[in-house]
Amino acid sequence: MERQGVDHLADERSKAEFDVDAMKIVWAGSQHAFDLADRMSKLVSADPVFQKDSRTMLDRKDLFKTTLRKAAYAFKRINELNLTYEEATKLRFFMDESNYMSLHWAMFVPAIKGQGTEEQQEKWLPLAQRLQIIGCYAQTELGHGSNIQGLETTATFDSNTDEFIIHSPTLTSSKWWPGGLGKVSTHAVVYARLMTEGQYHGVHGFVVQLRSLEDHLPLPGITVGDIGTKFGNGAYNTMDNGVLRFDHVRIPRNQMLMRVLQVSREGKCTYSDVPRQLIYGTMVYVRQTIVTAASTALSRAVTIATRYSCVRRQFGSQNGGPETRVIDYKTQQNRLFPLLASAYAFRFVAEWLEWLYSNVTDKLKANNFSTLQEAHACTSGLKSLTTSATADAIEECRKLCGGHGYLCSSGLPELFAVYVPACTYEGDNTVLLLQVARFLMKTVSQLGSGIQPVGTTAYMGRAKHLMKCCSTVERAEDWLEPTPILEAFEARAMRMAASCAQNMAIFSNPEKGFAEMSADLAEVAVAHCQLIVVSKFIDKLKQEVPGKGVKRQLKFLCNIYALSLLHKHQGEFLATSSITAEQASLATAQLRNLYSQVRPNAVALVDSFNYTDHYLGSILGRYDGNVYPKLYEAAWKDPLNDSAVPDGYVEYIKPLLEETIHLSRL
Amino acid sequence: MERQGVDHLADERSKAEFDVDAMKIVWAGSQHAFDLADRMSKLVSADPVFQKDSRTMLDRKDLFKTTLRKAAYAFKRINELNLTYEEATKLRFFMDESNYMSLHWAMFVPAIKGQGTEEQQEKWLPLAQRLQIIGCYAQTELGHGSNIQGLETTATFDSNTDEFIIHSPTLTSSKWWPGGLGKVSTHAVVYARLMTEGQYHGVHGFVVQLRSLEDHLPLPGITVGDIGTKFGNGAYNTMDNGVLRFDHVRIPRNQMLMRVLQVSREGKCTYSDVPRQLIYGTMVYVRQTIVTAASTALSRAVTIATRYSCVRRQFGSQNGGPETRVIDYKTQQNRLFPLLASAYAFRFVAEWLEWLYSNVTDKLKANNFSTLQEAHACTSGLKSLTTSATADAIEECRKLCGGHGYLCSSGLPELFAVYVPACTYEGDNTVLLLQVARFLMKTVSQLGSGIQPVGTTAYMGRAKHLMKCCSTVERAEDWLEPTPILEAFEARAMRMAASCAQNMAIFSNPEKGFAEMSADLAEVAVAHCQLIVVSKFIDKLKQEVPGKGVKRQLKFLCNIYALSLLHKHQGEFLATSSITAEQASLATAQLRNLYSQVRPNAVALVDSFNYTDHYLGSILGRYDGNVYPKLYEAAWKDPLNDSAVPDGYVEYIKPLLEETIHLSRL
Repeated sequence: MERQGVDHLADERSKAEFDVDAMKIVWAGSQHAFDLADRMSKLVSADPVFQKDSRTMLDRKDLFKTTLRKAAYAFKRINELNLTYEEATKLRFFMDESNYMSLHWAMFVPAIKGQGTEEQQEKWLPLAQRLQIIGCYAQTELGHGSNIQGLETTATFDSNTDEFIIHSPTLTSSKWWPGGLGKVSTHAVVYARLMTEGQYHGVHGFVVQLRSLEDHLPLPGITVGDIGTKFGNGAYNTMDNGVLRFDHVRIPRNQMLMRVLQVSREGKCTYSDVPRQLIYGTMVYVRQTIVTAASTALSRAVTIATRYSCVRRQFGSQNGGPETRVIDYKTQQNRLFPLLASAYAFRFVAEWLEWLYSNVTDKLKANNFSTLQEAHACTSGLKSLTTSATADAIEECRKLCGGHGYLCSSGLPELFAVYVPACTYEGDNTVLLLQVARFLMKTVSQLGSGIQPVGTTAYMGRAKHLMKCCSTVERAEDWLEPTPILEAFEARAMRMAASCAQNMAIFSNPEKGFAEMSADLAEVAVAHCQLIVVSKFIDKLKQEVPGKGVKRQLKFLCNIYALSLLHKHQGEFLATSSITAEQASLATAQLRNLYSQVRPNAVALVDSFNYTDHYLGSILGRYDGNVYPKLYEAAWKDPLNDSAVPDGYVEYIKPLLEETIHLSRL
Repeated sequence: MERQGVDHLADERSKAEFDVDAMKIVWAGSQHAFDLADRMSKLVSADPVFQKDSRTMLDRKDLFKTTLRKAAYAFKRINELNLTYEEATKLRFFMDESNYMSLHWAMFVPAIKGQGTEEQQEKWLPLAQRLQIIGCYAQTELGHGSNIQGLETTATFDSNTDEFIIHSPTLTSSKWWPGGLGKVSTHAVVYARLMTEGQYHGVHGFVVQLRSLEDHLPLPGITVGDIGTKFGNGAYNTMDNGVLRFDHVRIPRNQMLMRVLQVSREGKCTYSDVPRQLIYGTMVYVRQTIVTAASTALSRAVTIATRYSCVRRQFGSQNGGPETRVIDYKTQQNRLFPLLASAYAFRFVAEWLEWLYSNVTDKLKANNFSTLQEAHACTSGLKSLTTSATADAIEECRKLCGGHGYLCSSGLPELFAVYVPACTYEGDNTVLLLQVARFLMKTVSQLGSGIQPVGTTAYMGRAKHLMKCCSTVERAEDWLEPTPILEAFEARAMRMAASCAQNMAIFSNPEKGFAEMSADLAEVAVAHCQLIVVSKFIDKLKQEVPGKGVKRQLKFLCNIYALSLLHKHQGEFLATSSITAEQASLATAQLRNLYSQVRPNAVALVDSFNYTDHYLGSILGRYDGNVYPKLYEAAWKDPLNDSAVPDGYVEYIKPLLEETIHLSRL
């Protein structure tokens, strides 16, 4: 539908120097993935029930009720259309409205699968999969986020009754944040400190029923509710993030998820032979999906900013002609094109992480844990890097749209507000960087010992070379080649890591050194992760890529990604003598050249994401570029425009205007 | 009131090594300013009408009506208490809810004062000051923001009737964004292209009545409304930013504001002898107030993040003791303390800008325009620098509060959303940086010609020295001295400017060179503006500052501000050889030391802003640190918690749970 009528960006599209349809497949990852996304996004877009134009204007209750309606309707459609699991997931994705269903499918069901015994799975999975119960994942507490070992909720075994007593001993032990918990979930996997025979046995998951299946009221001993309004209009307020307190709630012993640790009728604990490292596999999986989501969110924002930058004109009119398109300003390109390149870079590193996850899983099955730590560090780091960059980039895209980016109808405020928690959930980004740094310091310390660094740290095995090599770049063109780029990024990461390790050694003990140097260590982790993204982009270019001109564009984007990082972190490259000031300046000159190369392809490069106008949810980012009439039209739909004279006029404006004696001192 | 009950931060406060009451005066600028702010903020805080706890939960209409009520009530109180103009302004400021009144007083009234003839002022000012009319400032159009010369609205003189015909010839000429326009203003100063005798005579202001004073309905030919929901909950949605179209609206000739240009009965144009440069004076004034507002917004965010960082504990528990306060982590300090330092830095540069404005005004009165351009460039640049830094910093403070920063009850989402437009209004920040760069390039090009650079560019007069000097820093302690800091910042700015000028000269013509190099030029402008802020902070330290330990704290903050910038922009300092890599590393080491010095004073340094809990509007930032019980309490006030079972349960949840045949393929 959106592809009808005048295309105000046709002119821009005609400039493209590559096969957009082929690029769409590259972006999606495969023909199958493209078809799936294309079908599901169009299905959602065509269905009026999934309309979301007025979402940012609804109050919390209306918003929430609308979301419940959409979620139930989506479930019904999935059923009617007999969709596969993959299709259903995509449909919910393009529905683009966070709700309890995602937590149920993405957290509750996998928790039972991953942590429940076979017997427990047989009992709970059919109920969950048929939605006869709705579940959530209750881990985080009011006083405890990142530090799971600090959780306070207790699960005390009572051998007299063969039950666990789930209890919230303090206010700070209240479960706080779990999505779907507040108003919808009937059940939860609750994480609590296992106490049996007077002893603490670590934190484990317990299936607890929260609400009656008859009337949805909270069961005795359960206090449950929503934690309140969150950042932004619409945004994550469609979700009932919840608070939950237990007052000595009893559950049968077999509702503790016992795949790893069993508690017997007598209260004895026994570990099974299931490797406890499995949990790392799950973390790799979850964080990989977050990296994919980062590339998606970023590409949405970039689509909006790119299209609108081709519509918006400002200054530069010559002889009364039209003003200059803002995308033609170098300052705009210098802010926008590195973000466009990042969207592609994050997409490809996410693709690689998918491979990494399946590789790790295979190895785990074979009881091979040799690469697990490295894979875990790598996904933690990439989660941190890509989500921080994406959050900043969405806001930058909003600013690139000037004043109009501030309107909800631009779509960007909501995209930002719904995205930013990614920097905090599933591991606070700073905490994660320090985990990576810890792993890197360990790797560095073992360099002399014969233990070879693996995977993404393999380059550290060439420490000797990297500590003393000099970049061979002599002309701006040299910065178009993968070898000098990779070497510069490797040298920078290696030297920063080595220098930190050296500085840490000065302190009385390693922990003190780590704590004192932690701000620098976080920078080391970022340098390492940027190297990973750059090298995976370069690897992608080594693969065969069909489609006229496609690889050429990807090469531009890869170089823009690398060189813009090099410019932004120039200080680290120079301080470590990984490059010279002259070479840095050649990189900047090459960047300007690359911007000119990408400019005519900009709109086609965002068209390649293949987003519907429904999914984008932005008047500024409309496919047809028909921005101003639609902005104007949308304004009149604001509730304030329901009447020409606003509510409150009679009480609060008219009396002011009519009073005659005022303010002697003003 | 908020100072009663247990003070959970008493321990932190007892650590302070300086006289907090004395620092409060320093922050406020004078005893008088402190008393005024203290009185007005407490007056607002104590009045239940000004309560704003539930603001983020209201829908647009309720929100707007509440704001109308508060605005009218504030006006009534101001009247009853017989407040001065200064007091009234402060009261409205602490009310902390944007509304039409601010535009009326800060834009409409000054426009008439500045651009109206004496006769026009006599007619309109009493009406406006007694609020018998309510006015707004209608400049920006749907298609035209920064470029005023591109405005499309026309004002065509009709000599037959002695009237101007105000008209919107296109959709993009619709006035768009003016605050107070949408639903409240009865009048506007409208900027339009003056056409008389078939000729264009530039853009001028016209007083146009928009709504009937009888029933508030729009007058014939006027289409007016609100432009729709903006970023964030509460936030700027209390303001009726408006859209306005004219269909050949006629106004008498004497409603064109004619202080600078007069149009005669016959339609002839004559310039008065009022200097047209006056407009720059106004811009200096407005932008100076924006810099002050930046320091205020930043200090609010920093207060919240600092206090909460002393409450929040995570990891690091030893032998089952309490976990570590997050403020004690170096990563937290490294993110937070530079922002604390920036709040003070921006406050002092704003103070200096107040002086600059009065200096410029005095000179203008004496027809001395010699420093006008420099003053204009300097305020433009500082507006850009401080607002961009503040917007980023508020979001960084939100992230520093972890997950709970995402709740509206933290106050930070609303603070961010209400603040960010400052990066766009009154000159887009990138456009402003390029104006500064243009001025700097001009200054550099004149260096050989005998014209001495003035004011903030005076250092460029020492170009010869600055192009070749080497930093004398040998030990980390040397970075505590003002001289090497200033010289490093001056050398960096000077060398970057010179290098840009050189690169521009390669291009065929200066305009082409400027356009091509504009991304680098924006960086030059930032370097120059950072130098200004650093040097004004250093100047402040030269003044006498009463109060035990106060100056010592300011010195810490000044050094943190300078050295954290030096670290962040290390690449520019190194690339220009303004410092060596070794010196950069000493600066980083010194920073760590400074963080330890400031740490025990952190809470006292934010207490010095003297903000009431009402003004902060944040549970995380509460003066007493009683965060968790109050967060818990606040959650239950969300409308979603009005009932245990949510609206929509019967229609959209119950049927799902009760259906029995589901989803064969899932």
